[in-house]
Amino acid sequence: MSCDFLALAQPGVQKLSPYVPGKPVDELARELDLDPANIVKLASNENPLGPSPKVLEAIRAELAELTRYPDGNGFELKTRLAARCGVSTAQVTLGNGSNDILDLVARAYLAPGLNAVFSQYAFAVYPISTQAVGAQGKVVPAKDWGHDLEAMLAAIDANTRVVFIANPNNPTGTWFGPDALARFLERVPENVLVVLDEAYIEYAEGDELPDGLQYLDAHPNLLVSRTFSKAYGLASLRVGYAISTQQVADVLNRVRQPFNVNSLALAAACAALDDSGYLAEGRRINDLGMVQLEEGFRRLGLTWIPSKGNFIAVDIGRDAAAIYQALLAEGVIVRPVGGYGMPNHLRISIGLPEENARCLEALAKVLARG
Amino acid sequence: MSCDFLALAQPGVQKLSPYVPGKPVDELARELDLDPANIVKLASNENPLGPSPKVLEAIRAELAELTRYPDGNGFELKTRLAARCGVSTAQVTLGNGSNDILDLVARAYLAPGLNAVFSQYAFAVYPISTQAVGAQGKVVPAKDWGHDLEAMLAAIDANTRVVFIANPNNPTGTWFGPDALARFLERVPENVLVVLDEAYIEYAEGDELPDGLQYLDAHPNLLVSRTFSKAYGLASLRVGYAISTQQVADVLNRVRQPFNVNSLALAAACAALDDSGYLAEGRRINDLGMVQLEEGFRRLGLTWIPSKGNFIAVDIGRDAAAIYQALLAEGVIVRPVGGYGMPNHLRISIGLPEENARCLEALAKVLARG
Repeated sequence: MSCDFLALAQPGVQKLSPYVPGKPVDELARELDLDPANIVKLASNENPLGPSPKVLEAIRAELAELTRYPDGNGFELKTRLAARCGVSTAQVTLGNGSNDILDLVARAYLAPGLNAVFSQYAFAVYPISTQAVGAQGKVVPAKDWGHDLEAMLAAIDANTRVVFIANPNNPTGTWFGPDALARFLERVPENVLVVLDEAYIEYAEGDELPDGLQYLDAHPNLLVSRTFSKAYGLASLRVGYAISTQQVADVLNRVRQPFNVNSLALAAACAALDDSGYLAEGRRINDLGMVQLEEGFRRLGLTWIPSKGNFIAVDIGRDAAAIYQALLAEGVIVRPVGGYGMPNHLRISIGLPEENARCLEALAKVLARG
Repeated sequence: MSCDFLALAQPGVQKLSPYVPGKPVDELARELDLDPANIVKLASNENPLGPSPKVLEAIRAELAELTRYPDGNGFELKTRLAARCGVSTAQVTLGNGSNDILDLVARAYLAPGLNAVFSQYAFAVYPISTQAVGAQGKVVPAKDWGHDLEAMLAAIDANTRVVFIANPNNPTGTWFGPDALARFLERVPENVLVVLDEAYIEYAEGDELPDGLQYLDAHPNLLVSRTFSKAYGLASLRVGYAISTQQVADVLNRVRQPFNVNSLALAAACAALDDSGYLAEGRRINDLGMVQLEEGFRRLGLTWIPSKGNFIAVDIGRDAAAIYQALLAEGVIVRPVGGYGMPNHLRISIGLPEENARCLEALAKVLARG
């Protein structure tokens, strides 16, 4: 006889549905007995360029210290991030990916009886991290697939401690401009922490998107979350960061596991920060690929949600689950977003030109079957 | 004007004192302007052998996939661990180090109004993870520096949900045998999760310590936590694991961040598991070093706590803080354990023979100053 250890878990935890990641190449290869080399994965908003040689060099230089614990204070990376962001090192929190940052915020500031406000179609980790600590997620209906910041303001109540906003947002690719952010920040109660998730901001540089860091001085309740997983190409290594007031960083660092970021990630992120060529090439490939996919969708008679990320959500015009499965059989992995309440869309990450072409061909073939 | 975001944090979080890691070599080098190559670090129970060539090969083979997310399900590593441990893959939970495992347990099963029982002088992460979720830590006085399992049983009350026990324990190196564990498990209430932390168990193989895995079938409330950071030499990469019932693993996997273990850690851990030669050499060096340090302490007229780990706590006979500082000036980093309520002890990790000699020489020199 044994006890029910599901019933003994915290109520919020009992109700958790784990995050569903994009299907890994190896998994599809195993399932369908395909050659991994022939599989195109455009499912996880990964950088299609492959690793930066400078990053690889930094990792190789670190391998001799493999048996040592990481620097739990992340001295070198924090120093470089602080310089780059124009803040003090005490304002930087490092995370095991920006997922860790979002989780730390929830653990520090949310609990049963409190709530977090976020948008419909927002990143799945916001509701998961909120639910995991037993807090309520207040989902605000989206406007044209994007954040309705006015409605989000209106949803804030006395029990709201955190608002999660993403710019651009994943999985929709939608965004808001500097004026909208400024108006929002002016009116958010000062005791509500605004988590501005800029995981994809590097792809929008030069566009009309605000740089969250510029709003930190005026708004001590703002936290900007960023990642090395996308434009910097370090998804495998898990490293993200938050910039906030020193006080909020101090709180998050209390909750943070002392060695949450591994040594190779720390070294790689330092190298990636300096590799402006890699970032520029990634943007160029992304801009080209976005046009390529949009043109392809147009030829197929499909519409899409305009995106500022490294991905695009295309409207299949009917339930997309069967199309997703059919694409898998063609060796093309994209991301179904039915779990986000977008059953007719597929989210397709921007790949290399040949990967995008392969995806469009497979899509044309699969759609032609009717 | 800004809000007090410390006061807004959860009460448990507000009271957290972060874990104090061993001082990194680079940090001491910066502070004292020393050559890092001349510094001996015996402060973090790291494997002194340096990386296994087989592990390095596995990491290098994985570098091409650096821009991809890790396999969030850890298929390959879980499959190998399950085979090795004689369990199903559904019983395995992977952690970002075993610290993550301890944290997941606390998040899943503890909350304000509930408590966790652990021993005086037990690993610092038990009280930290307990406190972080607002639960109470019930500290049971140690017996001869080790766990008093009878007293721990007696401390369990209606609000106890977790008992943390470590075998061997860090930082004391103390251990208990199979009979003591069996008696303990027979009498723990079945609704209390027993977390048996075996971070150092590989160093005790062939000794009289129990193998926690052998008790899983009879005790569904048992979870065995292990790590690749010590005997397997992967501290930098962050990978640990838990073996439990499928139900407890399912709960922990709900709380777990989807990509908590990085790709290089997954690949390295698979290779490390197969590298029995590395493990054996590590044990040999550790046994030799333990004798070397004990003999050195004896010559210096010092006593110590007998240890089954890869470290030993030596009694300086007076407040050891000044000795710790004086050793730093000699380029030798050990671990003060005043934070554990052991102000007269220093915890010294077993190093290579020349590192142990260097540490003993520095200790002799510093103690001779009186």
